[in-house]
Amino acid sequence: MTTNTAINLIKRPSGGPINADLFAVVEKEMPGVGAGEFLVKQNHMSLDPAMFGWMSPDTNSYIPPVALGDVMRSSGIGEVIESKHPDFKVGDRVMGMMGWQHYFLSNGQGVNKVDAPLPDEAILSIFALPGLTATQGLFNVGKPKKGETIIVTGAAGSVGSIVGQLAKADGLHVIGVVGRDEKADWIVNELGFDAAINYKSDDLDGQLARYAANGIDLYFENTGGPIQNLIVERMNAHGRVVVCGLIADYDKEVASPGPSWINVIKRRLTIQGFTMPDHFHEAPALLEKLTPYVMAGKIKHRSHVIEGLESAIEGLNLFFTGENKGKLIVKL
Amino acid sequence: MTTNTAINLIKRPSGGPINADLFAVVEKEMPGVGAGEFLVKQNHMSLDPAMFGWMSPDTNSYIPPVALGDVMRSSGIGEVIESKHPDFKVGDRVMGMMGWQHYFLSNGQGVNKVDAPLPDEAILSIFALPGLTATQGLFNVGKPKKGETIIVTGAAGSVGSIVGQLAKADGLHVIGVVGRDEKADWIVNELGFDAAINYKSDDLDGQLARYAANGIDLYFENTGGPIQNLIVERMNAHGRVVVCGLIADYDKEVASPGPSWINVIKRRLTIQGFTMPDHFHEAPALLEKLTPYVMAGKIKHRSHVIEGLESAIEGLNLFFTGENKGKLIVKL
Repeated sequence: MTTNTAINLIKRPSGGPINADLFAVVEKEMPGVGAGEFLVKQNHMSLDPAMFGWMSPDTNSYIPPVALGDVMRSSGIGEVIESKHPDFKVGDRVMGMMGWQHYFLSNGQGVNKVDAPLPDEAILSIFALPGLTATQGLFNVGKPKKGETIIVTGAAGSVGSIVGQLAKADGLHVIGVVGRDEKADWIVNELGFDAAINYKSDDLDGQLARYAANGIDLYFENTGGPIQNLIVERMNAHGRVVVCGLIADYDKEVASPGPSWINVIKRRLTIQGFTMPDHFHEAPALLEKLTPYVMAGKIKHRSHVIEGLESAIEGLNLFFTGENKGKLIVKL
Repeated sequence: MTTNTAINLIKRPSGGPINADLFAVVEKEMPGVGAGEFLVKQNHMSLDPAMFGWMSPDTNSYIPPVALGDVMRSSGIGEVIESKHPDFKVGDRVMGMMGWQHYFLSNGQGVNKVDAPLPDEAILSIFALPGLTATQGLFNVGKPKKGETIIVTGAAGSVGSIVGQLAKADGLHVIGVVGRDEKADWIVNELGFDAAINYKSDDLDGQLARYAANGIDLYFENTGGPIQNLIVERMNAHGRVVVCGLIADYDKEVASPGPSWINVIKRRLTIQGFTMPDHFHEAPALLEKLTPYVMAGKIKHRSHVIEGLESAIEGLNLFFTGENKGKLIVKL
């Protein structure tokens, strides 16, 4: 019988890029399938910025960290190859938190069948964590109104690109912040954002003044970084900030300070953080909200596929360099 | 006829203590009372931290700044001494935004009659801006739940002292942050707070750990300052921050940065600013909410009365030094 190659987390990151020594590639015995269980051969794994939270030791976080010595946590999509479970049969296409490994033994908890006739990459890019996160954050936290101006950081990222397209479809003026000109071009010319700002360019405040001439009502934060203060300075009264991610700080030992709360008072802002594990039970409603936009062709995506289980380790650093073009996916 | 002494704002503050050269004391002709108008002799004026906002040039603020050359804005209480208004008669006791002057001409807009048989100081300390602000901020923004832990900065101040007492009456564990040991003693031994922290003392984090052993659910912010970060670090999941004031920053040219948004994500915090002018139309409902607590003897106050119109100028600096003991009121 073949073995199951897996990657365990053996050390916690402490700032700086992700090094291979945080992980151990291990060969495990293939798990036996007991009553009520089934075995999945994983075909594609998703890499998400949320993983930095899962690797961190902070027990105050929204989800327990991956225990040292355990398989690294990740979501993925695969095919049932053996089953003693009444609801899952061999050949079923399923999605769930399968971890960094080729084979995944499940009792069905947290695993869903995938019926949509779309390739794995599209499922993981839209109907998995990115789409759920974008839908929850934009609609349920941000409460966008037609005609408002929204700014989205990490706008070419898996979540930001969907947020911007949903907002555009609902009649908002949409500005995206990215770190590469190629991404600026993609979100404006392919996704239909009204404007893009490369945060590495000059005169960020001048660009904000030009593109957000009426001020900013809604700020969907995926990255952090120095533009944060400039955006908050241009927010309108009763503006909302949806804090979804701070990728610029995930590789720092000490997080950068945030904006003064002076404008929180003066403009009566609401700054609200959220994470998806609080809302997984609402996934059906979120998918119901999201699906019509996808069916109407309003949500485009692109995937950045890297190959082989072990490519996941170095792949995480693409979140820091921004070199990926689209949703990061590992093909097994 | 007597003249009306008034104090006009002639220069905007630019950081540092309030200097007398920001103001001009002027003698004006006594205003004539036209049809539909009445004249009030002001007896007590309220000094409030909100005044620093009213003096500032920021047009993005929640209320237009006082125009240079205009009478400085303030609320006060007085007696109608002449009237050609159908609803206000000579001898009526009234409250409103009367400004820094002895006599105030009104058409009735924004002026309310005072019926409660309480001295001016108690009315201005509880049923005016401080009580409305505390009630709106605690209940409608903070949404306290019995058994939760709340921390209030500026806890001996006009708003903070009411917030803490309301929270205590509703069964919360209440911690107050103050800047003087005398104030710590007052809020614990007179007002019934569970604990007080002097932010000028050592080992603030140790004190937070001790007094907020179960973490902090609700943070009512009146001051800013370095304890802000330590408090946010100890907030529980789904904690709420009510941002009401940042007195520590009102005399700085550049506001201090705020806490990183990392914990906003990890703990799914909501940070919300509010100011009372958005809610003045809700004053009747707020007073209805507040009054039973006052009637039940659960809201104590103390006033710090200074004498004479011109004492108001130097009086503003007491907000920065914290030397006042209780609600600042100017007796005319």
